[in-house]
Amino acid sequence: MRVNRIKQCWQEKKTAINAWLTIPSSWTAELLAHQGYDSLTIDMQHGLIDYTTALSMLQAISTTETVPLVRVPWNEPGILMRILDAGAYGIICPMINNQAEAEAYVAACRYAPLGMRSYGPSRVVLYAGNDYLIHANDTVLLLAMIETREALENVDEIVSTEGLDGIYLGPADLSLSLGLKKIGDYQEPIMQEAIDRILESLRRQRKFGAAHATNPQDAVMLAERGFNMVTPAHDTALLEAGAKQALIQTRQWLSL
Amino acid sequence: MRVNRIKQCWQEKKTAINAWLTIPSSWTAELLAHQGYDSLTIDMQHGLIDYTTALSMLQAISTTETVPLVRVPWNEPGILMRILDAGAYGIICPMINNQAEAEAYVAACRYAPLGMRSYGPSRVVLYAGNDYLIHANDTVLLLAMIETREALENVDEIVSTEGLDGIYLGPADLSLSLGLKKIGDYQEPIMQEAIDRILESLRRQRKFGAAHATNPQDAVMLAERGFNMVTPAHDTALLEAGAKQALIQTRQWLSL
Amino acid sequence: MRVNRIKQCWQEKKTAINAWLTIPSSWTAELLAHQGYDSLTIDMQHGLIDYTTALSMLQAISTTETVPLVRVPWNEPGILMRILDAGAYGIICPMINNQAEAEAYVAACRYAPLGMRSYGPSRVVLYAGNDYLIHANDTVLLLAMIETREALENVDEIVSTEGLDGIYLGPADLSLSLGLKKIGDYQEPIMQEAIDRILESLRRQRKFGAAHATNPQDAVMLAERGFNMVTPAHDTALLEAGAKQALIQTRQWLSL
Amino acid sequence: MRVNRIKQCWQEKKTAINAWLTIPSSWTAELLAHQGYDSLTIDMQHGLIDYTTALSMLQAISTTETVPLVRVPWNEPGILMRILDAGAYGIICPMINNQAEAEAYVAACRYAPLGMRSYGPSRVVLYAGNDYLIHANDTVLLLAMIETREALENVDEIVSTEGLDGIYLGPADLSLSLGLKKIGDYQEPIMQEAIDRILESLRRQRKFGAAHATNPQDAVMLAERGFNMVTPAHDTALLEAGAKQALIQTRQWLSL
Amino acid sequence: MRVNRIKQCWQEKKTAINAWLTIPSSWTAELLAHQGYDSLTIDMQHGLIDYTTALSMLQAISTTETVPLVRVPWNEPGILMRILDAGAYGIICPMINNQAEAEAYVAACRYAPLGMRSYGPSRVVLYAGNDYLIHANDTVLLLAMIETREALENVDEIVSTEGLDGIYLGPADLSLSLGLKKIGDYQEPIMQEAIDRILESLRRQRKFGAAHATNPQDAVMLAERGFNMVTPAHDTALLEAGAKQALIQTRQWLSL
Amino acid sequence: MRVNRIKQCWQEKKTAINAWLTIPSSWTAELLAHQGYDSLTIDMQHGLIDYTTALSMLQAISTTETVPLVRVPWNEPGILMRILDAGAYGIICPMINNQAEAEAYVAACRYAPLGMRSYGPSRVVLYAGNDYLIHANDTVLLLAMIETREALENVDEIVSTEGLDGIYLGPADLSLSLGLKKIGDYQEPIMQEAIDRILESLRRQRKFGAAHATNPQDAVMLAERGFNMVTPAHDTALLEAGAKQALIQTRQWLSL
Repeated sequence: MRVNRIKQCWQEKKTAINAWLTIPSSWTAELLAHQGYDSLTIDMQHGLIDYTTALSMLQAISTTETVPLVRVPWNEPGILMRILDAGAYGIICPMINNQAEAEAYVAACRYAPLGMRSYGPSRVVLYAGNDYLIHANDTVLLLAMIETREALENVDEIVSTEGLDGIYLGPADLSLSLGLKKIGDYQEPIMQEAIDRILESLRRQRKFGAAHATNPQDAVMLAERGFNMVTPAHDTALLEAGAKQALIQTRQWLSL
Repeated sequence: MRVNRIKQCWQEKKTAINAWLTIPSSWTAELLAHQGYDSLTIDMQHGLIDYTTALSMLQAISTTETVPLVRVPWNEPGILMRILDAGAYGIICPMINNQAEAEAYVAACRYAPLGMRSYGPSRVVLYAGNDYLIHANDTVLLLAMIETREALENVDEIVSTEGLDGIYLGPADLSLSLGLKKIGDYQEPIMQEAIDRILESLRRQRKFGAAHATNPQDAVMLAERGFNMVTPAHDTALLEAGAKQALIQTRQWLSL
Repeated sequence: MRVNRIKQCWQEKKTAINAWLTIPSSWTAELLAHQGYDSLTIDMQHGLIDYTTALSMLQAISTTETVPLVRVPWNEPGILMRILDAGAYGIICPMINNQAEAEAYVAACRYAPLGMRSYGPSRVVLYAGNDYLIHANDTVLLLAMIETREALENVDEIVSTEGLDGIYLGPADLSLSLGLKKIGDYQEPIMQEAIDRILESLRRQRKFGAAHATNPQDAVMLAERGFNMVTPAHDTALLEAGAKQALIQTRQWLSL
Repeated sequence: MRVNRIKQCWQEKKTAINAWLTIPSSWTAELLAHQGYDSLTIDMQHGLIDYTTALSMLQAISTTETVPLVRVPWNEPGILMRILDAGAYGIICPMINNQAEAEAYVAACRYAPLGMRSYGPSRVVLYAGNDYLIHANDTVLLLAMIETREALENVDEIVSTEGLDGIYLGPADLSLSLGLKKIGDYQEPIMQEAIDRILESLRRQRKFGAAHATNPQDAVMLAERGFNMVTPAHDTALLEAGAKQALIQTRQWLSL
Repeated sequence: MRVNRIKQCWQEKKTAINAWLTIPSSWTAELLAHQGYDSLTIDMQHGLIDYTTALSMLQAISTTETVPLVRVPWNEPGILMRILDAGAYGIICPMINNQAEAEAYVAACRYAPLGMRSYGPSRVVLYAGNDYLIHANDTVLLLAMIETREALENVDEIVSTEGLDGIYLGPADLSLSLGLKKIGDYQEPIMQEAIDRILESLRRQRKFGAAHATNPQDAVMLAERGFNMVTPAHDTALLEAGAKQALIQTRQWLSL
Repeated sequence: MRVNRIKQCWQEKKTAINAWLTIPSSWTAELLAHQGYDSLTIDMQHGLIDYTTALSMLQAISTTETVPLVRVPWNEPGILMRILDAGAYGIICPMINNQAEAEAYVAACRYAPLGMRSYGPSRVVLYAGNDYLIHANDTVLLLAMIETREALENVDEIVSTEGLDGIYLGPADLSLSLGLKKIGDYQEPIMQEAIDRILESLRRQRKFGAAHATNPQDAVMLAERGFNMVTPAHDTALLEAGAKQALIQTRQWLSL
């Protein structure tokens, strides 16, 4: 079976650098897959991407060695199983608030006896190899999003879930849930405490941590704090910023 | 009928700033339509965009006041008429090398008696208004691409074509056709001469000039030389540059 | 943030007139958006419309001032959150039978502290404005469908749900659930009683009522009874009736 | 091979009643196929329909006995051959202005020795039967649109083209080309003369005539004048009229 | 209402032969619908098929008399109701492990008073006829998949569910759940016992049994054991085997 | 630039084995790309595949080392240039009947000074590498189809066209054009003569020959005759044959 390069990366104590895909297009997915990120995450929750588009994006990413991850729209067995069959080599599941939710998530993604994932790995067998069934439970990466006050309080139980590889920190929802003014601002002391608490739980239980950033500065700060994967890039945000900047610059220089 | 803001812009002696769309997605089209460019050009030639996708992008751009233009894949009456019916408020037609080609292009885009465009303006009536038939010949913008040695030699005849509003300078193909080493480099003296020749012809015949740039520096240079519309932004290029930059920056800072 | 014209309409004591979209097409959505209805509802339950098509229809409706509403396929957090991010300015949720279901529905659609909606308003920010997070809970319209005997019995509790703006009466399912012979017939005394009961509950709790009609006669009757929004038009039904009528008329006249 | 019911209809001296499809949707195509029209014409010229959508509409129409026709976007061999392979049982080709154009059109649609159509009838074999190659030249209906002054002058030569079954009168373009004020108005004396001239040519050469109408009144007039097929219905127009009418009626009654 | 030919087949004591569709394409669906199978099952669980594609496949199958069945992705009311409205004449629901799950499944698929299916049978009315509401509960086929140890233990309760027509045996997941080495191998004694147990329960309660096979040998064995429907064909597997075989044969003969 | 493995194969005097794709699906394209064929040809002429689908299939094939070829719908510059930009590493152009047509074809596919291909290699740069412009004229494979009597008579002139790599023999159309009873039957003496004539011309001018077969027997015969590439497999035909065979076998064994 094809190795999961993110897991390999972590075994080698390296920080994985991930980019976030929200544009529903196999073309932009293929374009970003060629930039050298360790992984790309197709965002089916807040991105504008449905199953059929996600499938085409998984194919596009598979033209390179970049690892295809998917953030699912919700902790629901149907979509979890289907996106794994379609070739996701890792899942980021939103809004895991307690151990019961974490266990339901993992059960849907692991074959028996660890879980209850239904067998029929259509496309992923082409990507992974014919021994997929044997190695899938060990190879596929499962991260639970910690992004509410409740999740933070239950972080130890969530992290301890058997079959779960680690967590993905969602700063926007976490700050909203914690009642903070600034959305997703890691500078807030309460956010820094949350980071401490999560990292401490991960280290104690030898699990992995990933965190959302949207810019290189935050990504580097998070990596230096100890997260194993950071996301400094978001396709829509990059395109918007670039287009805005080109227009402003042209207008400015023209008016000189 | 809805005014063509590009034509209006030119009557007010202002330079129009255009962005180039090659990503086949109504989402990125809508995103860029909100950035404030005067027009967006859907590139059906070198972009990855077919009729059905272009239609969805025309709808997305119509959520704003940005003028929707289309570069057609080729000078072929079928696609010219269909994309006008779909709501393009201007056309950029590639590889117009002589007056016969310019006349065929214009004929396909203008209603009788000026041309032979077939009547049936399905979607564009919603966008433009019910008096579309009366004003379309005056309102829809038609630009011919000058991008070969042959076109440069015939520039006066091309520009003189009745019903043609002006030209769009394609530097990449022009430099290739002229046998230059650097593709699309406006600094080349031969390119500068080509610009002179084109602008001189346009001024003499009171027609309009637009030019491709892909970055603000070139765009400003072209505007200052006298072009009425410049294109400093290209969606795929912006996204690629942004993603590359975010990765490089993150990697650099991490390795410090 | 862009005002919700349906809510505005209700503050001005006007009846909103809504049309129903079941054809999976951004073209027919755009066509109907230009007819002057106050709102259009994209029906993802009984219409033939999935997320990706709904997204394209939301874009098409946004070319006009008509308010885009969505009837979701089911009371499920994943689709509720995604369709709000995609630009729905109001939701009609089917089969809300008791207060627990109403609360779950509202929680998925309101940001903390009112609910648990996840933050990431991708497309809706373009439509609504950058202050979306601040005003969304007040601006987005949430209607619960009352369409079973159980719902009717629990109408007071459902209507009282905090964060819910009102209800949408579904006559077909209600009549089926009540065991009536004629499906969706408002003339049935039991249906009239149901209307009384619902309106009474809404008035007492100062919430809003909307009702499905499919023809102008019923729509006017419902408006006169006191509903704040009525739906006299259904795209598939209109097209079918028109096509049938044109054929019958042609055949009849030909055979004279 | 499956009989072409339109040709059969004509052999039985009956007038065929056709409806026009411009909405890019297999759902509306299937809906209209169930209304009882003799044929449906998928309009790839002024409709918003590309090849892939047309294919899905041909499948949808094939759920009934209604004959699927296609108006192609232009007289171009590539699309003519592909849409025949996809299952069109008849073609309406726009803007045939002289015999050379008519001959090129027919050549692209007929197998050798009559023409040069390339062999590879992928989907149409499922629809027509395995003996398609033997009978296709006789079964597939080919109509040339007469819709310009030039075409009118050359009507005899066009009609005489071997392998062409008849013509389809396009009143909008014809009136535009003839310089008439009202577009597509059959009441204009010049239009009536055009009808006479076309019908006279068809009768003399024993070919068939079809004519566009968009409403039952004109359709019946045209049938009574002698056309073998008339088109009283247009999907977008019917939907728009129905939606407008429902809104006006509701508003009127509400304001009483 | 159109008869359900699978139910008819069973009343006539015949074994129905079903093929499995996992390729997301209306073209391959139409192709297989012409081969003469009694039914085709669109697999929305392990196939690569989403709602919109399934809809187009249901249309394609409706060009023939082959009965369209759907395996849904999960036991979730939203998708169950929508796919029935889209024209599925039978459902195969995965992972029904106990009576509560079976009852929830049936409730979502049957109209009141038997269940709680919401009324609005958009496309299926075209396929089935206008009396759909009256006959749907009797005509639509509902099968529950027995594919876990738990389901096997609860088989009697599951089979006894009112409104459920029978079960569909899923050998791959069942063998996985039972801890067997070989996946989906009917030769395993434990699998043969499972078959006995299921068939015995079905006979006692006069319900129907269907079973997955993927090849003719197993299909015939299962039919001879007493299953009423067997699935000897799987589109992706057939295409893969055929392509592999053609390559191997060509290579072999070339190297002779 | 990525090497063209078909050209490499020919330099090593090996026969390339190609499969034919007519199913409009990136899934079946990816599946076949994993079977080990040297190349896959996406058939945009008789296949049911349009530009947008072809693009997704090119992406899917690029997940492997299999070389992606495209048969274009017609010898038209617009589609030739666009499909090369999309990533086709070779083109098969139908119905090249004389040298003028061959030259027009080659001109559209080669950059200046050899041809007039417009520059803008969007996706193919990701696939091929950043030096695409320098090597494309040498790397991209161009084959002209010989499939009419006229083409056979002009075979020497066609083969001699500068920039053309060789020909692709289309037996079905050739036999039809030659007036043979059996379509595409290589056993016909006239077909054998045609093969001789084509191979003789290719050898004399040191160009390459490819030939269509649809089954391994013919493919091997053609390879042994001297063709450098043969096509023993056709996706739709394989699927149809497999499905038919599975049904026949099941029915037969059941009735024993």
